[in-house]
Amino acid sequence: MTGPDFPSGEFEARLERAQRAMRQAGLDALLFTTEAEVRYFTGFRTLFWQSPTRPWFLVLPATGGPVAIVPEIGAALMRKSWVAEVLTWASPHPDDDGISLLSRSLLGKDRIGMPMGRESALRMPLADYARLRAHLPGTDFVDATPLVAHLRMVKSEAEIAILRQIASIASNAFDRAGEIFHEGQTLKQAFRAFRIALLEAGADDVPYLVGGAGPDGYADVISPPSGQVLHRGDVLMLDTGATLDGYYCDFDRNFAFGEASDSLRQAYDTLWRATEAGLKAARPGATAADLHEAMQSVIGQSTGDVGRYGHGLGMQLTEAPSVIAFDRTVMEPGMVMALEPSMVVAGDRIMVHEENIVIRDGAPELLSRRAPRELPVI
Amino acid sequence: MTGPDFPSGEFEARLERAQRAMRQAGLDALLFTTEAEVRYFTGFRTLFWQSPTRPWFLVLPATGGPVAIVPEIGAALMRKSWVAEVLTWASPHPDDDGISLLSRSLLGKDRIGMPMGRESALRMPLADYARLRAHLPGTDFVDATPLVAHLRMVKSEAEIAILRQIASIASNAFDRAGEIFHEGQTLKQAFRAFRIALLEAGADDVPYLVGGAGPDGYADVISPPSGQVLHRGDVLMLDTGATLDGYYCDFDRNFAFGEASDSLRQAYDTLWRATEAGLKAARPGATAADLHEAMQSVIGQSTGDVGRYGHGLGMQLTEAPSVIAFDRTVMEPGMVMALEPSMVVAGDRIMVHEENIVIRDGAPELLSRRAPRELPVI
Repeated sequence: MTGPDFPSGEFEARLERAQRAMRQAGLDALLFTTEAEVRYFTGFRTLFWQSPTRPWFLVLPATGGPVAIVPEIGAALMRKSWVAEVLTWASPHPDDDGISLLSRSLLGKDRIGMPMGRESALRMPLADYARLRAHLPGTDFVDATPLVAHLRMVKSEAEIAILRQIASIASNAFDRAGEIFHEGQTLKQAFRAFRIALLEAGADDVPYLVGGAGPDGYADVISPPSGQVLHRGDVLMLDTGATLDGYYCDFDRNFAFGEASDSLRQAYDTLWRATEAGLKAARPGATAADLHEAMQSVIGQSTGDVGRYGHGLGMQLTEAPSVIAFDRTVMEPGMVMALEPSMVVAGDRIMVHEENIVIRDGAPELLSRRAPRELPVI
Repeated sequence: MTGPDFPSGEFEARLERAQRAMRQAGLDALLFTTEAEVRYFTGFRTLFWQSPTRPWFLVLPATGGPVAIVPEIGAALMRKSWVAEVLTWASPHPDDDGISLLSRSLLGKDRIGMPMGRESALRMPLADYARLRAHLPGTDFVDATPLVAHLRMVKSEAEIAILRQIASIASNAFDRAGEIFHEGQTLKQAFRAFRIALLEAGADDVPYLVGGAGPDGYADVISPPSGQVLHRGDVLMLDTGATLDGYYCDFDRNFAFGEASDSLRQAYDTLWRATEAGLKAARPGATAADLHEAMQSVIGQSTGDVGRYGHGLGMQLTEAPSVIAFDRTVMEPGMVMALEPSMVVAGDRIMVHEENIVIRDGAPELLSRRAPRELPVI
């Protein structure tokens, strides 16, 4: 049967760290509505979050075990997790989709933390959130974004082992580029072939695959594939977030077809060296801003439309922190980061480069197989 | 290059319907933060929504064109859409992630509708939502859920054409079951092989694939695959939400290995006949509750943990309405629905059955190829 992705000890350790932080912050409970946070503390993993119909709630009290408040459709799966207290209701419900059940679980808690800041969302109807607040008139709801982000930022070795594996799977798939991609292919065909290669290499899923192509780089880094045909001299970039056990790799590779212009080769060289500078700066004690500075000094351009040179990585394609001038998050061993420098090649065309790493005492561990020193030509 | 998924006329028609509804509801604007709604009115399609880092905003004024307020990283792609007014800012931002830009766009509008009800979420930080409200002290923010849900529920023929194609692709992949699935295979292997089959059949992506197996049905319908080995006598169910141009099919199929118990065959027969009753009831003028009633009268059990017998379908895996006793949504031609009866087979084991249809004048159009009359044995 479906077993949990980690032994209970992993979840006990996550809860213990959370409860220590909650006591320091003076919080009586944490309340979560979003997939990553619910999964982080319970192990509850399902693609069913794609259905917007039903809300899911998790309460972490300052002492004692977590309480999952979930629709009946998820009860069987949640009960296989380490969570002992699972409350359910029949959902969809005509007028009370879990709100009275949730408010009873929160009763008597004076100060409740929720993610309300950077990168957070509220995955429940605003009207139900207002109803919940009305049920608990004496309760303060406060922002717990930095607390939760910091917990999730530092990965356990068990998490890193999965991340290492999915990055290796994607590296293996990229190694087949010469066989998979060819001139005359459309981007749609190239994307489909690469998705299949990732699955064949062992990925569970390929939730994220974007890219672009052209003789002077690409216009953006978030587009779906089109019917554009790959020509000699084009550079093709594919950026993939493939998953294993619900953990993401997130890196890209560039390939030129037949030949590459000098400007492409030079941009590639600059980005490769910028990444090298990022790798040198990625040490415990450095800030995310320091990593940004190290890469920008090589690139010699402003940060551009992408807005940053990397980010955290794990249960989501991108996580805190941001590799950007204003993010002072201090690197700690166990943080998993994507270094992602980008630059303008010509006019509105850009090039990107990306590697996934773990911050370690000393030099970082590379999870992705380092991109070739020179732009590969296939 | 990446072109829009629909001609401008499609989006003009969507806006016109929205503005007519807004005038009737006395709204000065609609504000959206979520992927499906932003895409519905702009055509902006990217997997990048999986990164939680940046908020995205769309304002539909009661008169005039839509205003997209998006991070710079999305500007190039949004400018390829039919939307004439695209405002951008450098995101992530240290202290103003689009909020002052958004509030300027909403200035002078007294009554702004947002999805706040059933199936909705707020995809921006709660703290930024509070900041927005503080910027606009005289403005009423009201729930526009039914208005927006109804617009999206009734599909255009252009949308239906895509939905027909992706359902046909998934039907073709299911037709290869005998070649793909076999005894001795693990569920993980079966899922991976089926994902590849869906891509080979022409799906762009397989964002949703869940299922289960066992000699008496399965425990739930939302689990990821495990290392469980398929044995003779097991029934395997796979439920897929594969996509084409960002539109989902959502249906499942059951297969028995070598042989099937009488209870499995009987449950399958009941669910097949329940679907048949649903198909007969699915006429313009019938309510979602009528469809539920028609299927339940065949099944003769309470609705169970799944909580409903189907739902709308389109740009999301599940959309309004719900096929459930309390949902009085009236069927109209062009609505696309998943009929999804389920029942307990034995103890805590269930079986499900699912088809995708379009409500038409007269009998509905089947999008999925109708499941075989008897449980297929492979």
